[in-house]
Amino acid sequence: MNEKLQGFPVIVEFPIAWGEMDPQQHVNNVVYFRYMENARIAYYDRIGAWQLAEEEGIGTVLHSTDCRYRIPLTYPDTISVGARVTAIEADRFTMEYRIVSNKLGKVAAEGKGVLVAFDFRKNGKTALPEVLRRNMEALEAGMIRE
Amino acid sequence: MNEKLQGFPVIVEFPIAWGEMDPQQHVNNVVYFRYMENARIAYYDRIGAWQLAEEEGIGTVLHSTDCRYRIPLTYPDTISVGARVTAIEADRFTMEYRIVSNKLGKVAAEGKGVLVAFDFRKNGKTALPEVLRRNMEALEAGMIRE
Amino acid sequence: MNEKLQGFPVIVEFPIAWGEMDPQQHVNNVVYFRYMENARIAYYDRIGAWQLAEEEGIGTVLHSTDCRYRIPLTYPDTISVGARVTAIEADRFTMEYRIVSNKLGKVAAEGKGVLVAFDFRKNGKTALPEVLRRNMEALEAGMIRE
Amino acid sequence: MNEKLQGFPVIVEFPIAWGEMDPQQHVNNVVYFRYMENARIAYYDRIGAWQLAEEEGIGTVLHSTDCRYRIPLTYPDTISVGARVTAIEADRFTMEYRIVSNKLGKVAAEGKGVLVAFDFRKNGKTALPEVLRRNMEALEAGMIRE
Repeated sequence: MNEKLQGFPVIVEFPIAWGEMDPQQHVNNVVYFRYMENARIAYYDRIGAWQLAEEEGIGTVLHSTDCRYRIPLTYPDTISVGARVTAIEADRFTMEYRIVSNKLGKVAAEGKGVLVAFDFRKNGKTALPEVLRRNMEALEAGMIRE
Repeated sequence: MNEKLQGFPVIVEFPIAWGEMDPQQHVNNVVYFRYMENARIAYYDRIGAWQLAEEEGIGTVLHSTDCRYRIPLTYPDTISVGARVTAIEADRFTMEYRIVSNKLGKVAAEGKGVLVAFDFRKNGKTALPEVLRRNMEALEAGMIRE
Repeated sequence: MNEKLQGFPVIVEFPIAWGEMDPQQHVNNVVYFRYMENARIAYYDRIGAWQLAEEEGIGTVLHSTDCRYRIPLTYPDTISVGARVTAIEADRFTMEYRIVSNKLGKVAAEGKGVLVAFDFRKNGKTALPEVLRRNMEALEAGMIRE
Repeated sequence: MNEKLQGFPVIVEFPIAWGEMDPQQHVNNVVYFRYMENARIAYYDRIGAWQLAEEEGIGTVLHSTDCRYRIPLTYPDTISVGARVTAIEADRFTMEYRIVSNKLGKVAAEGKGVLVAFDFRKNGKTALPEVLRRNMEALEAGMIRE
C-alpha cells in the first residue's frame, strides 16, 4: 500500500512510456491529464458508471479540470495514481487525483476534475443518479472492495 | 500545389505540434501514423465513406500499415500529407501516403495501409461496396473535385 | 480576425484530427491541453523565449494549469486557440487560453497556466528574465507584430 | 510466462488506457506503434543502448516500421508486448514485436522495425557498434538475465 495515497479508494499503477516524454526530457505536461483520466476511468469501473450509461443513457461530462505539477517525471518509472470523490452535489461531483512516482517515492502532481451528470439521450444536464451517489459514498467509506 | 505530391488526389496540410517531438528532439515515429491517418480520413470524407458506414453499417478496418522514414521532422514546420489509392481488390484496397515537410521542401516519409471492407452489423469481412470503388476510381481519375 | 479572440495577441489555427476523438465521439478532454500548449509555444516563439533558453539556460516550467470545457469539439473542424499573458510577477506569469471552434463560431474551452522562471543550468527557480517581461508587455500592448 | 511470447527475450506488460480508444470503440491503430516502442525501449535498456548513446554519441534511428493488425483491443485489458532481434547486419538490425491481449489470450498484432546505427555527433550513419551486436546476441541466446 502506497502511503502517499492513503485515503484514495481507487489507485491505478502503470509504467511511464518513454515516448510520453517531450524535448525537455521529462513527461509532457499534457500526459498528466491522461494519467488522471486513467484513474477516473478505474473509479467509474468500481461504481458501475459504465453500466448505468449503457442502460439508462446517463453518464457524466467533464466540466473543468486542473493540475498542479510538483516534480518532473521521467522514464523509467512506474506511477501510482489515486482518485477520490471529495464533494457530491445535486448534479455534479468533484474528483481529486494524486500522481505518485514510485521511483522517487514522491507526489509528482495533484489535480481535480468536476464531473456533471449528463443525459445523453436528452442531450442535456440532469440530476446525479442516486445509484452513482450511493456507490461513490460506499466506495469512499471503504464499503466497496475490489 | 506541392510538386512533391503530384498524383495524390487528397492532400491535408497542418502544423507540427511542438509536443509531438520526443526526447530526441524530433517528431516521434509514432506520430507519423497519426499524420497518415489524417490523410486517410480526409480521403474518406471525399468518397462518402462515412455516410456509407452510417447508412449501411459497412466500413473498413486497417489490415496492416507501414512507414519508411526519410528525414526527421521538427517544430516549427507545416507538413502536407498526400493519400492515394493504388490497388483495389474484391474486398480491400491499398492506400499510399507521402509526408512532405514544407519547411524543407522534402519528402519526410512514405507509407501505405491495406484497408479491408468490414460489415459492422454482421461483424465480419465483406465485399468492397461498389459505391466506394466507383468513388475511389473517380477521385483518382481526377473526376471528383473538392 | 476571429472576434471571439479579440485581445489575444497570439492565435494559432489548425484542424482537429479525427483520431483525437475518443469513444464518446468528441475530442478527448486531454487533447485540449495539447491545443493550449500549441498556443503557448507560438507565444514563446514571439517573445524570444527559445533563444533565451538556449543562450542563457533560463526558461520556464509549468507550475499549474486548468481548463473549463464549454462545448464538445468534433471532427471535422478547425480551431483557433488564443494565448495572452494576464499577470506578470517577479518569478512567474499567468497565461490565459481560449479555444474557438471555427465551425460552430463558439468558444469551446478556456484555460490558463502559471509558468515559473527556471534556471536549467542551476536546476532551480530564478527571477523572470527582464527581456521576457519586456517582450511580453510589448506583445500584449500590440507593439510586436508578426 | 506468456506462451504466445515464447522466443521473445524482452516482454513488457501494461494496461490499455481507455483514452487510447477512438470513436470506433477500440484502441486506435496509431497507438499500437507506441506499444511496440515501449518494448523496443525496454530492449534497449537491456543491451546498454542508452549508456552507449550517452558515452559515445552512437545510437539508432528508425528506418522503417510496420504493423499487421489481427484483432481489435479494447479497454479494460492488459497487454504483453514482446521484442526480439531477428537479423543483424553491418549497420542495422531488425526487431520484431508481438502484442498479446491478456484478456483474450490472443495475438492482437505483429510488427517489425529496422533500426540503423547513427552517429549523433557526426550526424550520419555508422557501423553497428560491436558492443550492441554482442549484447543483442547474448540477450537472444538467453545469456542476459534481468
